[in-house]
Amino acid sequence: MDNVEGNTIFIGKKGTMSYVLAVITQFNQGANIVVIKARGKTISKAVDVSEIVKNKFVNTLKIENILISTEEISTENNTPMKVSAIEIVLSK
Amino acid sequence: MDNVEGNTIFIGKKGTMSYVLAVITQFNQGANIVVIKARGKTISKAVDVSEIVKNKFVNTLKIENILISTEEISTENNTPMKVSAIEIVLSK
Repeated sequence: MDNVEGNTIFIGKKGTMSYVLAVITQFNQGANIVVIKARGKTISKAVDVSEIVKNKFVNTLKIENILISTEEISTENNTPMKVSAIEIVLSK
Repeated sequence: MDNVEGNTIFIGKKGTMSYVLAVITQFNQGANIVVIKARGKTISKAVDVSEIVKNKFVNTLKIENILISTEEISTENNTPMKVSAIEIVLSK
């Protein structure tokens, strides 16, 4: 069984190509599925990463599923804040 | 047959709630399907709009499909630029 959790890439503040490389590395290390997760403003970057991997590096890439949701995160002063999230499930 | 094109909301520079209102208006005017489209940095806003409509206004909302793609747009100096796009298909 695939350890899907282990193949999850969280999109953060680094440049888009860092995450593209992270996805490619996961696939090259034998992962069949890689999940890209992002929240808030980094959602656009998650879509960019998927599209760049598909169009430039892994021609056989398939977007298995795209899920959107709302997560509650706690901010610095402990007031909860709702933020949109995306999960893009990729397979080779 | 539904005129899906007519029920498409393009996400731009306005505030999130403007687009939330636009989606709700489409449904209230009898649309069964509303498609939210966004490109580049506004992709996050498209997800926000879908989630706010679902969680706060239309409890029966179903996300029928989410598609991501790459579009080529021409910039001011006529050099083509690739940009990620999202299409979120909502039904009531």
